[in-house]
Parts: sequence; C-alpha cells; structure tokens
Amino acid sequence: LFEMTGTGLAGVEDAGGLFLIDRRGGTPGSVVFPAMEGQRPLLVEVQALILETSLPSPRRSATGFDGGRLALLLAVLERRAGLAFGRYDVYISAVGGVRIADPGADLAVCMALVSAFRGQAVAEDMVVLGEVGLGGEVRQVAQTPRRLAEAARFGFAEAVVPDRGPAEAPLQLRLVSSLAHAVERSLGPDPAWLQLAASSARKPSVAFPGGDSDVVR
Amino acid sequence: LFEMTGTGLAGVEDAGGLFLIDRRGGTPGSVVFPAMEGQRPLLVEVQALILETSLPSPRRSATGFDGGRLALLLAVLERRAGLAFGRYDVYISAVGGVRIADPGADLAVCMALVSAFRGQAVAEDMVVLGEVGLGGEVRQVAQTPRRLAEAARFGFAEAVVPDRGPAEAPLQLRLVSSLAHAVERSLGPDPAWLQLAASSARKPSVAFPGGDSDVVR
Amino acid sequence: LFEMTGTGLAGVEDAGGLFLIDRRGGTPGSVVFPAMEGQRPLLVEVQALILETSLPSPRRSATGFDGGRLALLLAVLERRAGLAFGRYDVYISAVGGVRIADPGADLAVCMALVSAFRGQAVAEDMVVLGEVGLGGEVRQVAQTPRRLAEAARFGFAEAVVPDRGPAEAPLQLRLVSSLAHAVERSLGPDPAWLQLAASSARKPSVAFPGGDSDVVR
Amino acid sequence: LFEMTGTGLAGVEDAGGLFLIDRRGGTPGSVVFPAMEGQRPLLVEVQALILETSLPSPRRSATGFDGGRLALLLAVLERRAGLAFGRYDVYISAVGGVRIADPGADLAVCMALVSAFRGQAVAEDMVVLGEVGLGGEVRQVAQTPRRLAEAARFGFAEAVVPDRGPAEAPLQLRLVSSLAHAVERSLGPDPAWLQLAASSARKPSVAFPGGDSDVVR
Amino acid sequence: LFEMTGTGLAGVEDAGGLFLIDRRGGTPGSVVFPAMEGQRPLLVEVQALILETSLPSPRRSATGFDGGRLALLLAVLERRAGLAFGRYDVYISAVGGVRIADPGADLAVCMALVSAFRGQAVAEDMVVLGEVGLGGEVRQVAQTPRRLAEAARFGFAEAVVPDRGPAEAPLQLRLVSSLAHAVERSLGPDPAWLQLAASSARKPSVAFPGGDSDVVR
Amino acid sequence: LFEMTGTGLAGVEDAGGLFLIDRRGGTPGSVVFPAMEGQRPLLVEVQALILETSLPSPRRSATGFDGGRLALLLAVLERRAGLAFGRYDVYISAVGGVRIADPGADLAVCMALVSAFRGQAVAEDMVVLGEVGLGGEVRQVAQTPRRLAEAARFGFAEAVVPDRGPAEAPLQLRLVSSLAHAVERSLGPDPAWLQLAASSARKPSVAFPGGDSDVVR
Repeated sequence: LFEMTGTGLAGVEDAGGLFLIDRRGGTPGSVVFPAMEGQRPLLVEVQALILETSLPSPRRSATGFDGGRLALLLAVLERRAGLAFGRYDVYISAVGGVRIADPGADLAVCMALVSAFRGQAVAEDMVVLGEVGLGGEVRQVAQTPRRLAEAARFGFAEAVVPDRGPAEAPLQLRLVSSLAHAVERSLGPDPAWLQLAASSARKPSVAFPGGDSDVVR
Repeated sequence: LFEMTGTGLAGVEDAGGLFLIDRRGGTPGSVVFPAMEGQRPLLVEVQALILETSLPSPRRSATGFDGGRLALLLAVLERRAGLAFGRYDVYISAVGGVRIADPGADLAVCMALVSAFRGQAVAEDMVVLGEVGLGGEVRQVAQTPRRLAEAARFGFAEAVVPDRGPAEAPLQLRLVSSLAHAVERSLGPDPAWLQLAASSARKPSVAFPGGDSDVVR
Repeated sequence: LFEMTGTGLAGVEDAGGLFLIDRRGGTPGSVVFPAMEGQRPLLVEVQALILETSLPSPRRSATGFDGGRLALLLAVLERRAGLAFGRYDVYISAVGGVRIADPGADLAVCMALVSAFRGQAVAEDMVVLGEVGLGGEVRQVAQTPRRLAEAARFGFAEAVVPDRGPAEAPLQLRLVSSLAHAVERSLGPDPAWLQLAASSARKPSVAFPGGDSDVVR
Repeated sequence: LFEMTGTGLAGVEDAGGLFLIDRRGGTPGSVVFPAMEGQRPLLVEVQALILETSLPSPRRSATGFDGGRLALLLAVLERRAGLAFGRYDVYISAVGGVRIADPGADLAVCMALVSAFRGQAVAEDMVVLGEVGLGGEVRQVAQTPRRLAEAARFGFAEAVVPDRGPAEAPLQLRLVSSLAHAVERSLGPDPAWLQLAASSARKPSVAFPGGDSDVVR
Repeated sequence: LFEMTGTGLAGVEDAGGLFLIDRRGGTPGSVVFPAMEGQRPLLVEVQALILETSLPSPRRSATGFDGGRLALLLAVLERRAGLAFGRYDVYISAVGGVRIADPGADLAVCMALVSAFRGQAVAEDMVVLGEVGLGGEVRQVAQTPRRLAEAARFGFAEAVVPDRGPAEAPLQLRLVSSLAHAVERSLGPDPAWLQLAASSARKPSVAFPGGDSDVVR
Repeated sequence: LFEMTGTGLAGVEDAGGLFLIDRRGGTPGSVVFPAMEGQRPLLVEVQALILETSLPSPRRSATGFDGGRLALLLAVLERRAGLAFGRYDVYISAVGGVRIADPGADLAVCMALVSAFRGQAVAEDMVVLGEVGLGGEVRQVAQTPRRLAEAARFGFAEAVVPDRGPAEAPLQLRLVSSLAHAVERSLGPDPAWLQLAASSARKPSVAFPGGDSDVVR
C-alpha cells in the first residue's frame, strides 16, 4: 500500500559526507569508500560482520552490494590472501541504504572483510579505492581524482589506491599492486593467531590444480 | 483477473496515526516506528513473532520489510547483543500492509525482536527510530524532527533515538549509542532466564575470529 | 503465443456477488470475504484444503494470495490459537481467479484454515473481515461499511468483524478482539479430538522464549 | 539475439479449431478445453503425462499452465477423488504453445490427469469446462454459451459442464456437480486395479484432521 | 555498465543460412531446424550434449530454449521412445546465441537428444520440423512451406515433417506420425547396445499407472 | 536510495583499450576478448579462478557472463577436452564491470578456464575469439575484422580465431577448428600432471552413451 523510504538527498547542500555523521572510529569491519552518485562524489561506509556459522553451508548476505560479487571476492581472498571463510557466516552492508554497483568498491569490501576477520580496525582517516581482479591484482577506477578530492575535503588523510593511479592527490596515497599488498600496507602482516589458524586449516593436502604457480606476488 | 486491495489514504485528513487504531498495549513484540511516506509522516507498528522451530534450518519471514535486511539484523543482534535466534522461527510484519524500505526502521525491528524474544512489552507510549550498523552502533535518520513531532501529536511521550540527534523535541528523548544500549534503556538488563540460556547456549567454544575485540561498548 | 483468460467483469451490471453463484453450503474450509475491487465491493470465497503431508517439509501453496503472508498467518495460528500445521500440506485459494492483496482478508483466511482443519463448516450466511496482527489481535479494515452493505445486499445475515468497528450495520455483527476469540464465536470451542491432539502434540517440552507471557487473552 | 516464434493467428480466418488439426483420438491424457482468446473462442487441447518417479520428491511440470495451480489441483484430486500422485512425475502441457490463465480450464486439466493416470481415453468428441474448488465442487465459467457454440461448430457432440450452467446448448451436456462426479460421468467408475492400489496405498493410518467430514458427495 | 553483444542481422542480405557456416557434418547431437524470425525464415542448428552425471540429481541445461519444455520432452522420450536420461546430464543449445520459443522446434530438439544419446549423426542434408505432444504424436507447424523452401534454397535435400503436412515440397519429405516413428525413419532402429541397456535398466518392475495402454504406435 | 556506479565511457575518446590499463602479464586465468559494444570495438579481459571445493556440489559463479552458458562450456570442456571440473569451484569474471552476452566470447572463457586449471598463462599479446559448439567445434563470430583491427591497434600480435575466418588480418592468426585444437595451439599439449590426473580421475568405468563416437578430432 505505502512504500516507506527515508527521503533522499534532494536539496541537501553538502551531501558528500552525509553518511559519515555517526561513524564510530576504531570499529573493525568498517571501511570508507569514495563512491560516485552520477557526477557527484559521495563517501560511503562499507561494513562487514563475520560470525562462526551454525549452518551446513555458511550464509553470505550482501545488503546494497551484489551477492555474486561478494562470493567472488571471498574466493579471491581465499586464493590470493590465504583467508578461508568456509566456517563463517559473512555479512556485508553499505550504510544509509545506499546501493553500490561500482566494481571500484571491490577493494573496500575486501578490506572490510579482512578487518572484521582479524578484529583489527582500519585507520579512521583512510579511504579505500580499487577494483580487484581474480588474480588478486588491484585495478584503477574511473574518476579517481574527483573521488579523492571529496575525501580530502571531509578530512580524510590517506587513501589506498592502485599503484598506477594519479601522480599526486590532496591526501597521502598508499599505492598498492595487489590485494595482499593492500592488506599488508594498511593492516600490517597477519597476526600470529591467524597464521596459525591458516596453517592448520589448510594443510598441504589442499592442492590447487596447477600448484601455486598463479599466485600474484 | 482482479486485484483486491484495501483502498489507500487518499482523502483521509489525519492519516498519520491511521494504523494505530487497534493497537493493543502491553503486547510483547510490538514497536511503533515513525515512518515517512514521501513528505508525510506516518506512524507504523512493527510486530515480531518468535517460535521454536521444527525445521532443520529455521524460518525467517518478513512481510513489508526486506528479508535480507532481517537476516543481517539477526546477525547483529547475535554478535552485538548476545541473542541467538538459531533455534527459532522469526516473523516480522508491518501492520496495515505497509511496506518499509527505510534503514531508519532498523532499531524498531531489532527492539520488536528483543521484546518478543524476552516476552516483555515495550512501553506503550514509546516510538523507536534509528539505523543499526553492523558494529551495533545506532545511526541518525533523515527528517527526525518531523517524525518526532508527528509521534508527539498522537500522544507518544518517549522516543528512543541516536545520541547525536536533535537537541530538543516535543517528547522525552532516550539517547542511545548502540543496540545493546537501546535494549537496556528501554527494556532493562537481560532477565535472569535469558542470561542463563545465553551462557549455556554459547559456551567459550564459540570463538569468533579476532576474539571479542570488535564488540561495541 | 496466446494468453487464454476468462473475460472480466466489464459490463456486468450486478457483479458484487458474481463469484458466489456455485458456492456449496456446509463445506468446511470455505469462508466469504467482502473485498474491494477499487471502489467497488465484491464478495470473494476463500477456500482452504489441508492434507497430511508425505514430504519432509510440508507444502504451503497460495493461489490468489501472498505465500509469505500465508506462512505468517500459520505461525500466528500456531502461537495464538494452538493449531499446529507442521505435519500437513496447506492450500489456500481465492475462487474465480481473483487475486487478494488486502490485509483485511487475514481473518477470512485464518477462519478457512481452522474450518478445514476441524472439518467443521462456517455458517453459510456469514462473512468474515479483519486484519490479523502477530499478537493474534484482530484489526479494523478500510471501508468496512461499504463492504458490509454489499454482503447484506446479497443475503448474508452475519459478519465477524473487529470489536472496535462500526456501531451498527445492515446485518448482525459478531464483534471479536482476537483470533482465538473469532474462532470461538463462529465455530465454538475446540472439539475434544483437537484438544487431545494439541495436548499430545505440544507437550510442556515446547517452551517459547519468554514463556507464555505474550499470549493475547 | 533473435527470438524465434512461430507466427500467430493474424489473418487466419477460421482459427477456432486451429490446434486440433493433428489431434489423435483415443490417446489417454488428452482433453479439449473451449478457451477464450479475448473475445474469440479457441479450442485448446490439454495433455497430461504421468511417469513413475525416480526422484526423492516427484516432478511437477506445467507448460502453458500455472505450476502453483497444478499443485493445487493435484491436492484436490487426492483429497476429493482418491487419486494419489505422490510417487509419480506429472507433466501438463497446452498444445500449440498456448498459455492458459483461465480458472475455467481446471476441470479439463483434472480430467486429463485422471485419464492419463487410468490409461483410459476420454471420448474424442467431448469438451470439458469448469473451475474446480478446493471442496471438489465444479463451478461455472464466464461466456459458457459462446465456448460451447464454437465446440459444436467444430463437430464436438458432448460437453462436461457445471450442473447449474445453461439450460440448453448446441451439443449434449453432461451436467456435473463435483470432480468425482465428472470423472464418473465421463470415464466411468474406477477400474478394479486402481481401487486396489488406492486401498493399499492409503490405509486407515492416513487420518485427515477433522476426519472425512468435508468430502463433497 | 556495458552490454557486449555481437551485432545482429541488420543489413545482412542473405541471412537465412547465416548460422550454418561453420557446421561440421557427421557430429552426433546436431540437428538443423528451419525457424521463423518474424516473417523471415532462418536455419538454426540445435545441439545436444549428454554426459554421465556425477550429481545426485542430474543437470538439465537449456541455452536458447525453454528449460521447462526440455524437461517435458525428456519425459516424452522416456515414455514414448524408451530412452531413460535419469543418469545423464543433458545440455541443449541453439547455435549463434539464437533464442527459440517456437513449439515447432520440439522434434528437432528430440532428434538432437536421441542422436547424441546414440552417438549416431543425423544426415547432414536433413532438416527437422514438428511439435511433439505428450502422447508422442508429431504435430504440424505454422508456415511450413516457407520454412522448407528456405531449407531447399540452402541445399538441404530432406525434411522430417508431420505426416499430415504439405503434399509437395522442394525437397524430399519423410512423413512421420510419432516421435518413435521419426527416430526410426531418420536414425534407424535402436542399436543393439541401447536395446540391451533399455531392457536391463527398465525391468517389468517399472509399472506405469494404467499399464502400457497409452503408448502411441 | 542511491545507485552507485562508476561513470561510463561517455566522452572518452579512445576507449577501446580502456580496461587493459592494469592488466598484469603472465597471470594464469586471464584472456583478452575483442568485444563489440554496439558498433564500437572494446577489448575486455576475461578472468577465471579455480579453487578446490569444500561444498557437496561445487560452486559456479559468473560475473558479467551468463551462468547457464558457463555450465554448458564446462560440460563441453569435460567432454571434448578431457578436463573434469567436478571437484572445483569455478569463478568467471569480466574486468571493469562489463557484461558480455555475445557467444563469440565462448572460446575466451574456455581458454581462461584451461589456463587457470593448468596454472599456465596465455601469451600476453594474444586475443581469443570464437563461439564454441557442443561438439567442441569453434565457430565464426560477426564483425571479426573490426575486432581484430582494434586488437592490433592496441599492440596485440596474435589472435586465436576459427579456421574458416578472414584470409588476412593486421596481426598473426592462429586458425583453430576445435576447442582441443585451440588449447594445444596456444598452451601446448597437456602437462604430465594433468594427463596423470585425467587418467586416474576418469577410468574406463566412465562410459558415455554411444561410446566415444562423437568426439570431434
């Protein structure tokens, strides 16, 4: 009968940072992605939640993000960064009811997943931008300069971006070439408990076809 | 052949409280959410029903609310407020055939779920408003002043709202920062039987990746 | 290639009772609902069929009615009226290919289900009207006077309606406040065999969270 | 890229019997239904095929007919005519790529199912018309006279129709009140092997709620 | 973002045989169907692939053809031609990204399935045309003369068509009345290994309801 | 509320190679396909990722490519090139959020799958073009000359194309007639470990109907 939606941005003068008002710093699983809404930049918080599963096949739930793409990124994280999500329910959500169909959000989603998995927060003043390929490589995104300028305008100081990106920007760039590289440059090396879990969870019996020859380094 | 629908609000002069006419006070699982229908505020009752399941994987049913978002909120309730719905069928419905697509209803849905789970009614003269993030944080909602004014006009005396919200309002505000906070401020601490159930249901063997470091407090 | 549909009401002068021509009195599972087709009242027969299931998870089939809403009403019937449909396939259909999207049909659907379950017919000259909440409460429906007038015009003598409804009507009103109340006022108390089945089927081991405190009485 | 469809009736002068050209007489599972394509009558052959299943849950496939309605009619056949399809795959198809959304085809579909199940053909010069209710009753259909006139024009001599239908028609009417009645009037009583199968397949242990009190006789 | 499709037939002067350029003769599972694209004939290659399954329930995949209709034709092949596909994955595809919604392609699909199953190629210069009924009968198709003329123009010498079809045509007609008939007239009787497999796979224990009385001969 | 997409090609002057900027050479599972976006050629990178499965039925995920077509190509690879994907999760993605609905991408998808399976990269300066039939044959694609010219313009030196394709082109052509042929001409014969795996995985007990008579050689 009635469709209840919160009213949109119409008439809002400085909307670019609208959805960041209630962001809590220091929460694992939270990453800010500089999105484009048409020709207007908009900073969007991506959140991940990871829970040990009680189901035979674990749940993957994406709100405001394509479910198929989430499955694909989880596979890339497993293959290219050594994180196995097989025993966990995984939830991804974009704050504020926003819907993201931009492959440039891939790296932000991956970083939110790793951050939640490790229980380790990403720096509060950092934005993350990049498409992730199946080889684990990080790829450039359209309109990167406009996105970064908006992030700087709202006080962000650092940006994780693909390493062949713009030469200069109004905030500090962390240039990364691969997913594993991005994780290490923003969250540091794997904590000890994770390395332990990884080594016990995936023994040599887990053999990929073609061996390990296609890992991007 | 024919589509039978009840006729809408056209021509109804004071529609804001239309769906509250037959509300029964003191029923657990019932919470009032101050919604927006376009530019017009409308008070909507959200209801939850929880039944021990007889199925291998429990049922989640949402009428007038997005099913994916319900699954996500159940995960947040488990991770951030310690309520495990794994052995229960969960039903959520918006009264009057209304359809809600506003993330601002998150907190009302969560409160209805907790109220039904505990068998403890929310105060009759209270409305609930706020988006819930995966970190358990409660976030502001567009057009909060108009929503609260409408609630006051229909006799509501209290509102649970995000703690960085409006400084004053025509009814008493209960400012909350997180889901756990909202539960405690409106329903009180967990009853003894629930603490008992929680402690026996989720023993230390339930270890999250990254430990408990990302619980919002 | 071709879409075969029976032709509609266009040009039919007295359509309100069209679908009642072949109604058989005294059949359990049949209830008449006074619907609105736009601004025109139309009496629609709702039918329920219940069969012991041979499948691991029982079938729920709704023709001309929303399947999700049927699941929700079955949960309310279980929780609020003590009827367990877990071992039965359940079919609901609106006669004449009509499609109902009006929450005001909830009570008619519930009464059809109870009538089929008990094998006990509803009175032939009775119509049923009301939305059913998850608390088991019965709620008012838009345009009740026009609906009841049409029912009276086609010879119906009684109407089961929410108890805060219209003060007077052209037929006898049975005012009800809850689903359990409606069942008792139209079909009488549970027959002995059902009470027996209920008591053996749902022993004290079936404990709801929060105990029984939220049963509407 | 390309959508390959056979071209339609455009310009065909005497289309009413178009799809009967290759009908083979004496085939079990074949029944002719006098449909309406808008304001034009069209005779459509409905076919049923029944195969012992090799799957855990048997297959139900409907081409040109609603799958949910097929499931419902199978339940009515089980409850009201004693035919159990639980161990059989069931296929229904409308010949010529026609799509039927008219509840008036219910009885033709049911008769095709019974005919295939028994391995007994319906008379070649017979058409079948009627909606089937969940009580097993047969109900009238809009524009019955035009449909029957078209059937007579193409040489059909008999029509199975609801018993409160038209007083006279250009072919012989077999008036029926219920599904069981229609089966008996067109195919005769159950053959001995079927009665045997029925009695062994559904022993007294199969108890419906409410006993057998709602069987239409 | 972008939709990549090969460009269509626009401006192609002699498109009727476009998709036959790379056809390889002598491949089992390949059959040519004379389709209509609107008012223009177009020869389309239908291909079938059959693989022993490794799944609990075998896969049925149709590209450019309706999946429900494929399931139905497999049932007809089992019931009317004695071919059991229960242990095989079945794939059907129309070459060139063409999409077929014409029941006249039924017989071509069936012949492709039988050809792949037997590992025996259909004659290279043969087209196949006909709708298949659930009784196994082959039925006429609209615009048969135009379709056959196009086939002849591209060098096809034979056509398998329904036996009440056109009296003469620009290529040799093989008139068939049933699916079994069509198989025998184009591929010959079942090879010995298939008869053996059939007799061992489907022993007398496989009893259809109504016995074998409805097999079309 | 908002749909976040990266902005498109509008106004980009030399878009043909847009999505190749961040391509990493030497990565197994990556193949470049010369696509058409309407009348404009566009070089698209197709990527495959293959992971040993942990699920009872392995996952098949296609982003920007039809999932049904992926299943079909996997069956062709198994039947015609001897690669069994039954124990592996398979992911296919088109870089840059591009969506491919052109059957001419079949061969590129197959080559990406084989490359990932073997852990062996395709040559960096090679594009791949061709539709794949169920018989394993490679078929021509519309507008091949324009596609190849664009590839040459961006520095590609070789193209794998169907063997009845254009006589000359601005880059070196590797003419192939079948899928197996294409694999051998671009990646060389199967490595020893794969032959070993194949011979142990698929023993003679795996018998196709009709034997091996329909393998394309």
